Amino acid sequence: MNNLSARIRNTTLQEKIISAEEAASLIKAGMNIGTSGFTPSGYPKAVPLALAERIRQEKFTVNLWTGASVGKELDAALAEVGGIAKRLPYQTNAVTRQAINSGRMQYTDLHLSHVAPMARAGFLGGKVDVAIVEACAITEAGHIVPTTSVGNAAAFVQLADTVIVELNVAQPLALEGMHDIVTPGLPPVQAVLPLVNVADRIGVPYIPCSIEKIAGIVVSDIPDDVRPLAAVDADAKAMTGHLIKFLQAEIKAGRMPANLLPLQSGVGSVANAVITGLVDSDFSNLTVYTEVIQDGMLDLIDAGKLTFASGTALTPSPQGLQRFYANLDRYKDKLVLRPQEISNHPEIARRLGIIAMNTAIEFDIYGHVNSTHVMGSKIMNGIGGSGDFARNGYLTCFFSSSVAKEGAISCIVPMCSHIDHTEHDVDVFITEQGVADIRGLSPKERARKIIGNCAHPRYRPRLLDYLERAEKATGGAHTPHLLAEALSWHCRFLETGTMQF
Amino acid sequence: MNNLSARIRNTTLQEKIISAEEAASLIKAGMNIGTSGFTPSGYPKAVPLALAERIRQEKFTVNLWTGASVGKELDAALAEVGGIAKRLPYQTNAVTRQAINSGRMQYTDLHLSHVAPMARAGFLGGKVDVAIVEACAITEAGHIVPTTSVGNAAAFVQLADTVIVELNVAQPLALEGMHDIVTPGLPPVQAVLPLVNVADRIGVPYIPCSIEKIAGIVVSDIPDDVRPLAAVDADAKAMTGHLIKFLQAEIKAGRMPANLLPLQSGVGSVANAVITGLVDSDFSNLTVYTEVIQDGMLDLIDAGKLTFASGTALTPSPQGLQRFYANLDRYKDKLVLRPQEISNHPEIARRLGIIAMNTAIEFDIYGHVNSTHVMGSKIMNGIGGSGDFARNGYLTCFFSSSVAKEGAISCIVPMCSHIDHTEHDVDVFITEQGVADIRGLSPKERARKIIGNCAHPRYRPRLLDYLERAEKATGGAHTPHLLAEALSWHCRFLETGTMQF
Repeated sequence: MNNLSARIRNTTLQEKIISAEEAASLIKAGMNIGTSGFTPSGYPKAVPLALAERIRQEKFTVNLWTGASVGKELDAALAEVGGIAKRLPYQTNAVTRQAINSGRMQYTDLHLSHVAPMARAGFLGGKVDVAIVEACAITEAGHIVPTTSVGNAAAFVQLADTVIVELNVAQPLALEGMHDIVTPGLPPVQAVLPLVNVADRIGVPYIPCSIEKIAGIVVSDIPDDVRPLAAVDADAKAMTGHLIKFLQAEIKAGRMPANLLPLQSGVGSVANAVITGLVDSDFSNLTVYTEVIQDGMLDLIDAGKLTFASGTALTPSPQGLQRFYANLDRYKDKLVLRPQEISNHPEIARRLGIIAMNTAIEFDIYGHVNSTHVMGSKIMNGIGGSGDFARNGYLTCFFSSSVAKEGAISCIVPMCSHIDHTEHDVDVFITEQGVADIRGLSPKERARKIIGNCAHPRYRPRLLDYLERAEKATGGAHTPHLLAEALSWHCRFLETGTMQF
Repeated sequence: MNNLSARIRNTTLQEKIISAEEAASLIKAGMNIGTSGFTPSGYPKAVPLALAERIRQEKFTVNLWTGASVGKELDAALAEVGGIAKRLPYQTNAVTRQAINSGRMQYTDLHLSHVAPMARAGFLGGKVDVAIVEACAITEAGHIVPTTSVGNAAAFVQLADTVIVELNVAQPLALEGMHDIVTPGLPPVQAVLPLVNVADRIGVPYIPCSIEKIAGIVVSDIPDDVRPLAAVDADAKAMTGHLIKFLQAEIKAGRMPANLLPLQSGVGSVANAVITGLVDSDFSNLTVYTEVIQDGMLDLIDAGKLTFASGTALTPSPQGLQRFYANLDRYKDKLVLRPQEISNHPEIARRLGIIAMNTAIEFDIYGHVNSTHVMGSKIMNGIGGSGDFARNGYLTCFFSSSVAKEGAISCIVPMCSHIDHTEHDVDVFITEQGVADIRGLSPKERARKIIGNCAHPRYRPRLLDYLERAEKATGGAHTPHLLAEALSWHCRFLETGTMQF
């Protein structure tokens, strides 16, 4: 107990330590469980593993609400025993994905800034019955100090009657002070968010909670299941080069300050490669206002090029995490973690003028983006926060390789098989082939630029042929389509295994 | 001159009165012309008519940037002589639409809150060369007092080197004081917008301008080309009934305050019918935060049910306009007109918690919305502000009749032929058949609710058949589609004139 007194600072709470199994027993069939966690960072681990074991024996389901994707001890463990009836708002796990795409799990794919407001409004199918939150400490008053992510933890604690805290002693206590927590209320009484600079702190460094709400504290030492980043491939390198050239030209044209504007970057290897690529660029005094802080941002801090990064999760690679832990004092005053309803808030995205950079599965010649579905029907991950930033930011870029599956799939198609971002939301497309700057263009103008600059040469003539025949057939309509043919590239792939003619 | 001194309060400016033809001669081929006007309200009339005549003789084109749609003296007059190379961000005129859908005019269909920020950032293809703004007065300092709309007038004046003021003496001087003008700067230096109540004033009652910028003042007396509203039909009446019942249930469930939240309502007869329908409801102390103030809102004020309405344009029917002019003093302290980047601002939409109510052309079984295109290719009007509110508001509703063309078209289809709002953005669909409340649902759950509650009985079995076959063919994928068949309903209509089997 003694060694925990620095982490559980209230004697009443010290007596609430229970086992993971006891905590799991507080959860009943059909409950809505809201947890901390955003990417494999800062999610509860021991209690979900115990819950999965209980579900394996007792056969029941719960609904799982998180920040975004989480680690295997939560998503995979519960999905493997068929324990999740409904999952929201985002996932990236192979077991979860398989369950969703076979009708065994219902999945509600939401804009990440919408989750807390919708939960608060009672729009997501009932209330949060139990919140399970990973912490590195609990204050004297019962407030919860989060770990490597905030996500929706603050909102779920605010809304739940019962809170289970998973106190993770593998997370350094030095994380305390890295968080800035605001928990908005419901309209019509909502305050202005006075955040005008990336580094501004507008809240408190803990999740407000009361001692009474905490039903139990489970001590755990399971580390975040962070994953290595894929090596930077040639496509990612080419896209980074195109982006840097494009941004340099924007500065020269007076459309962007010399130190750019706050960067938002999606999660994953391509996004990380783009950020890492900035280390070798001429840009300095950069800022980041994003969801997830990855290795590339630590690289930029080390290179003296990034003055501040705001996110809702810190998710480096295993080596990146070691680097972060070992140099926590140096990084700490350059980083802040906020609730995802603040990191992704439309008010802040518009005010700060964010440069939104996200990855597409495919996009079409008129500028619509598919971020979520493979060949129209099967979900990959989800929309995540891309829509929060794409709609409300200053400049919206989407990245994709021009082809996938060794060229069998063209990622630029006549019509997307699923649409998550519309023609009204994109400014710039970047593939390894080049940049299509479609700002201010009409659909037909966009089509020629996208085909010419972004499509793979192998597919360019066919895309242009589609456009020209559609223009002719529709008499030059605003967005010329041959509806009988618009999805034929996907159909051909489903039938033959390739989009190639 | 004497009778104009109350309207042109600076003697230097009084000498800048020129003819419409002289004003039109300031415009050169290829220029970007930014005008006031939002719906057929507050747009310049005399100068565009003179410009159209010049273009008819001299054959050249300009690019036309407005607030939204405008009256015939601007859009139709210029389109008829082939004078518009590129049009943005919205239109509703038959001549313009025809030019766009035959490739003779390029059209950039933008979120209405994006136009001013994008123009300011230089993202729309150059700068605003000339701003033409309708005014009811010009102050001693040269500031411009707008008339029945604000739209993008303030931003265009801010950005243009040359400003032409069309002083419309048919617009009552008593409009002065009805406007609240804020002209934001560019990020990274953007202030908080301290608007926390619908009635808050955060700016000045005029468009800031300098005497030097004003190149000429044209005196005109052409009234706004406002149009009668269509009679409320049975479908609109049924949808209003469904909406009122739904909102009453939301209040009962504790998900909505008793006086609701600020109402946003699209433009047109259905939207007006919905608002008018609230006159006979039990709701009181209502507020409106929307783009366009129509007759229904005046009805609600007269009925003592609406405490305040904020918009960017005042566009009643001809009778409504007479009623407004005759009772200006009574209405004036209950109305404010703001720039559209403020009326539609994501920051305000989220903070106030707007109830967004807009009209769809069609929507699909999974909850995607087509607001703009007829059968995929031909533009109808444009997305307008629907995306600003749908993405960032509190509750997002879309309305449509379940069928069009005497039943030949089902407005609920397997897959939309164009998508403007995605599955991630809609909470509630309402047709004359009923309400589909899809909040928190997975795509397959949504599909059953939309088909069951909103589709026309004639099309229900076929929609359900598509869903079931798609589920079977994809093994119960997240969003089951038969891609070869997804757009076949539209193809059948294009081939046979009906979607019926």
